[in-house]
Amino acid sequence: MNSGARNLLLLSSSRLHGYGYLEHARAQLEDLFKAKNVKTVLFVPYALRDHDKYTATVRAALQPWGYAVEGLHTKPDPGRALREAQAIFVGGGNTFVLLKQLYELQLVELIRQLVLEQGLTYVGSSAGTNVATRSIHTTNDMPVMQPPTFEALALVPFNINPHYLDADLSSQHKGETRDERIEEFVSYHARPVLGLREGTSLRVQGDRATLLGERNAKLFKSDGSTVEYEPQSDFSFLLKE
Amino acid sequence: MNSGARNLLLLSSSRLHGYGYLEHARAQLEDLFKAKNVKTVLFVPYALRDHDKYTATVRAALQPWGYAVEGLHTKPDPGRALREAQAIFVGGGNTFVLLKQLYELQLVELIRQLVLEQGLTYVGSSAGTNVATRSIHTTNDMPVMQPPTFEALALVPFNINPHYLDADLSSQHKGETRDERIEEFVSYHARPVLGLREGTSLRVQGDRATLLGERNAKLFKSDGSTVEYEPQSDFSFLLKE
Repeated sequence: MNSGARNLLLLSSSRLHGYGYLEHARAQLEDLFKAKNVKTVLFVPYALRDHDKYTATVRAALQPWGYAVEGLHTKPDPGRALREAQAIFVGGGNTFVLLKQLYELQLVELIRQLVLEQGLTYVGSSAGTNVATRSIHTTNDMPVMQPPTFEALALVPFNINPHYLDADLSSQHKGETRDERIEEFVSYHARPVLGLREGTSLRVQGDRATLLGERNAKLFKSDGSTVEYEPQSDFSFLLKE
Repeated sequence: MNSGARNLLLLSSSRLHGYGYLEHARAQLEDLFKAKNVKTVLFVPYALRDHDKYTATVRAALQPWGYAVEGLHTKPDPGRALREAQAIFVGGGNTFVLLKQLYELQLVELIRQLVLEQGLTYVGSSAGTNVATRSIHTTNDMPVMQPPTFEALALVPFNINPHYLDADLSSQHKGETRDERIEEFVSYHARPVLGLREGTSLRVQGDRATLLGERNAKLFKSDGSTVEYEPQSDFSFLLKE
């Protein structure tokens, strides 16, 4: 697919310690929306149970900044609503629940096509970032629902681990660390995973990708090695399949 | 199915801070094996990548206590090996990888039948405990592989969350707490989940179930409430579907 029209903002999380909901990402969102003159955001609330409440939360954050927010779940024809949207925001929650719902509503191929070919602006946060990637294999969520497949929107050809977390070396807990889990994925699939710490995001414009936010990101390379990247790093090389 | 023959030990984890591999569970294992005069344990290593190494780790732990250990992966006919086994131990690792392999080898129904009808002694740890329950919906593991279904051995009719972990109230991380994840499962399925802290286990003999170890367990009830249970608590009521 032609991906020159791509206009994505993939957030690690919607919340960051010390900030209000989405507040840490305000400048990033404004920059993204300004580029396409977005005034109304179509919110995709399926990752949480209460769609009305979730949409109200997002509206309360974005409306004061000058954006109208509509909930996709209120639209009688979701496909048409997506085709007419200026931008979509896919919120976090449970990645399995979200992806299952997107498949059940038969929206996966449509969103993929609108974003990659028509340049529909896409904002994802946490689970909304997971489903934007190649697959949901690197979600942190509990598999409370079973989607038909773990393959996702593939708006980018690699995997992201949102809420990426360094190991707590003082912990006495014997569950696997985040690094161990991601390395396990890499060992089975030989595919790269970008660990996005809270407060960071990936901005994708066409074939360019840039790390935003004030913290490093950790790349788990397909050969099993890892590299830390500083803010504003160029990740365009990850977009080449 | 008749479940009067059931002889299970479902461990939260194989490792506990301050102890060697399986060491904290030695008395529990000896009690379990003595009941059926077990001398040789058939180890199921599929949750980790290196089956030989994993089997060697288990052998190094159990052999000094007087038990021989064989790896299921070394058997030319796994079905026959299971039918002839005195006891099986399904080790931890990745729950998705483990369940996928059990389905691929067509061992799910066989193990279920041998354990529930023939009284084959079953020890599970972590992922091996997850697959022993109704489904793997409440695993903590990253979904690095996709099994055909999340439904599992159903040796007990409820779910367990191994490595159950209380929320760290000092944390600034915005990912969901373990409780939030389990409560999400309960809200969608209205089914109970037993949170087993590291060092604890569930011993099942026929239609009786008892909490072993020195810490409480937390039960997430199907109505959304939670109850803490002390060591030696009777969980037989969870076995009634």
